[in-house]
Amino acid sequence: MRVVDIIQNKRDGRELNEKEISFLLDNYQENKVPDYQMSAFLMSVYFNGMTKNELKIFTEKMVNSGDVIKFQGIDKFLIDKHSTGGVGDKTTIALAGLFAALDIGTAKLSGRGLGHTGGTIDKFEAIPGFSFPQTKEELIKMVNTTGTGIMGASENVVPLDKKIYALRDVTATVQSIHLIASSIMSKKLAVYADGLILDVKVGSGAFMKNLDEARKLSNAMLDIGDSFNRKVVTILTNMDEPLGFAVGNANEIIEAIETLKGRGPKDFTDLIETIVGMALKLKGDVDSLEEGIKKVHKVIKNGEALKYLKEFISYSGGNGELVDDYSLLPTAKFELRLFSKTSGWVKEINAEEIGKAGMILGAGRATKIDIIDYAVGINLNKKVGDKVEVGELLAIIHYNNDKNLKTSEKMIENSYSYSQTKTIPKNVILEINSVNI
Amino acid sequence: MRVVDIIQNKRDGRELNEKEISFLLDNYQENKVPDYQMSAFLMSVYFNGMTKNELKIFTEKMVNSGDVIKFQGIDKFLIDKHSTGGVGDKTTIALAGLFAALDIGTAKLSGRGLGHTGGTIDKFEAIPGFSFPQTKEELIKMVNTTGTGIMGASENVVPLDKKIYALRDVTATVQSIHLIASSIMSKKLAVYADGLILDVKVGSGAFMKNLDEARKLSNAMLDIGDSFNRKVVTILTNMDEPLGFAVGNANEIIEAIETLKGRGPKDFTDLIETIVGMALKLKGDVDSLEEGIKKVHKVIKNGEALKYLKEFISYSGGNGELVDDYSLLPTAKFELRLFSKTSGWVKEINAEEIGKAGMILGAGRATKIDIIDYAVGINLNKKVGDKVEVGELLAIIHYNNDKNLKTSEKMIENSYSYSQTKTIPKNVILEINSVNI
Repeated sequence: MRVVDIIQNKRDGRELNEKEISFLLDNYQENKVPDYQMSAFLMSVYFNGMTKNELKIFTEKMVNSGDVIKFQGIDKFLIDKHSTGGVGDKTTIALAGLFAALDIGTAKLSGRGLGHTGGTIDKFEAIPGFSFPQTKEELIKMVNTTGTGIMGASENVVPLDKKIYALRDVTATVQSIHLIASSIMSKKLAVYADGLILDVKVGSGAFMKNLDEARKLSNAMLDIGDSFNRKVVTILTNMDEPLGFAVGNANEIIEAIETLKGRGPKDFTDLIETIVGMALKLKGDVDSLEEGIKKVHKVIKNGEALKYLKEFISYSGGNGELVDDYSLLPTAKFELRLFSKTSGWVKEINAEEIGKAGMILGAGRATKIDIIDYAVGINLNKKVGDKVEVGELLAIIHYNNDKNLKTSEKMIENSYSYSQTKTIPKNVILEINSVNI
Repeated sequence: MRVVDIIQNKRDGRELNEKEISFLLDNYQENKVPDYQMSAFLMSVYFNGMTKNELKIFTEKMVNSGDVIKFQGIDKFLIDKHSTGGVGDKTTIALAGLFAALDIGTAKLSGRGLGHTGGTIDKFEAIPGFSFPQTKEELIKMVNTTGTGIMGASENVVPLDKKIYALRDVTATVQSIHLIASSIMSKKLAVYADGLILDVKVGSGAFMKNLDEARKLSNAMLDIGDSFNRKVVTILTNMDEPLGFAVGNANEIIEAIETLKGRGPKDFTDLIETIVGMALKLKGDVDSLEEGIKKVHKVIKNGEALKYLKEFISYSGGNGELVDDYSLLPTAKFELRLFSKTSGWVKEINAEEIGKAGMILGAGRATKIDIIDYAVGINLNKKVGDKVEVGELLAIIHYNNDKNLKTSEKMIENSYSYSQTKTIPKNVILEINSVNI
């Protein structure tokens, strides 16, 4: 078997068999297939995609390239919620309280963020004293106690994905829908959960710029999930503006807490209600999403969700009192208020630009070695559909030093676009699909 | 400028500008762009092709990656005839006599063959004592004396093509029409000729398997030629069977000589008449191809063409008498006669298979270090359109030892396909196109 023939088959649209895919990936992992052949193969996949069977085999090889983890001794129904990455996405923080209040467990490995704002791990670390488990045993104990177990991704989960991703990054093959699907799913399948909920962001601030692409990604991930007999839900959600008002780290924690107090932004509230509602359906506790959402309302109203988040924070070394005293979180020294120079209705807020505006102030990492300033961030005051007059407050920048401040200000202003006629914000939930439930 | 963005632009079908192409190729030549980025770029070119302007810039960079040669002190009108590679193609041997008889010069660098049968240089070297010029000065003297100057390709003509071709070979990007066009044309443009004649072979034995692909290649080469203001003719020719009857080295020389004596196979005779006819048109000696062909007939009939070939051989160290005494050429010790087991009309003769059947007997090189046995070869006795009865002579294998003989025999048998109704051979000339004449 020759690698050049495997590339040629993919290039010419012929379905690869298990032997071919195994030969390619095994030898690539062992550095016996050079990068220049793999990049030509990946570009062929970009153009021709993979069939359901190819996706299954490819993903299976990825999963088995490293450790496959199934945590022992957890008696909870485990949900792994994953997002393709948005701006202002503080979902996992809110879910820590909501899942626990509804007896759903989470045991997952999570990454640190790169670009835009921090990842889930970074956001929690904005809480002084907060620390994540370092061992599997600590993680299991954490899940059994608080319902939520999150730890940093071990080096040896899907190492082949890391190797391939590094190559994709420099060869313009990141954007292949099927490679994205297989990369996400391999990491989800390598760490066992009873059900997967995949939040596929769609819009200017997301990796998937339009509904058509997002649907293809969703279908590919459902196909893979189905091949592995897993319960999978995909939720396509709007990212034509940041999620909620807060973009940063500490300020996102506050917004998540506010949401558990029933005072959250509409879009973010809708999103977490849907995710938790679908999780309850996956678990078999409810027959419909509507029924699930009712249960969510209940645990927000009676304070259970907030109580569990507080416990989770305390358990992890943070001061649980911060859910009622936000001054226990890092606070920026300065704030800059941005006022509108235009009037009209907000039509779109380029979320990617807002994310970058936060990043250059220190809310995210441009490179792996950058250190995040948890206190800085952006709080929007106007969202899509809002009427804005000249001179009205548009957003507040929280910052600690004025490096990049002017640029950030400009980026926020430019990210807003207006209409002279009334605009109606999109529903955050665009589409829900599932397999095996 | 980042290479990954250049790859992405090509991937997404955006036209690249001169800066981008220069940046990519210059840095690749200097080993500053790694192979894995170049292979991803080449695969994108495979899928999206290049525009006329991209082809021009790309080819220009290739040409200028090494020496650009214009021979000084040649007063002849120079034609460079190039073929995309066929089986049984002894054109250059016949042209050495015909061009000289019609006062057309040739000064070109030629390659040795790999696969199938030998290249032009190899075929001439089948003549005992024959040697090619080693310096430019020798080449120029040779052209001025005999009309024909051919020498081995210098290492420094289009070195970037060598580097890129080696990568294409292992990344399934050889078959890109535009990369083929630019590779051929860069080598032709790097060594000056007044006119180019490109013989694009089409069929089972050729690189271009069908007319549609061949037309695309022809158009791309004409586009490039036009961008460089060169007179270019492309001739699409049939390769659904080997050219002529002889496949090998010494036996091909004999067939070329026979053709100059007016006793050549119809297809080969048609081909050289057309090439030389078009060359006369390019030179401006005739107004039409028909008029040109008449001149060809004349120098065959009056023996001028043969006389010049004889002179060329003598000048190069060979014994010119061999044009009348073929025993002066290497002769194989044994011959094996193949008789047909089928009856019918020959429908097709897979030329690639015939080429390989000759190669494994020693008529060509499987690897660069193989040594060619000039004496061995295959002489077909039946061509497309011929009626064959069971037991009739199909072909003769000339061989020196019986290694691979059985396999070769099988391959020749299998390369013949038959019809039970009368077949009509295709005209060897399928299409002629040109620019700037």
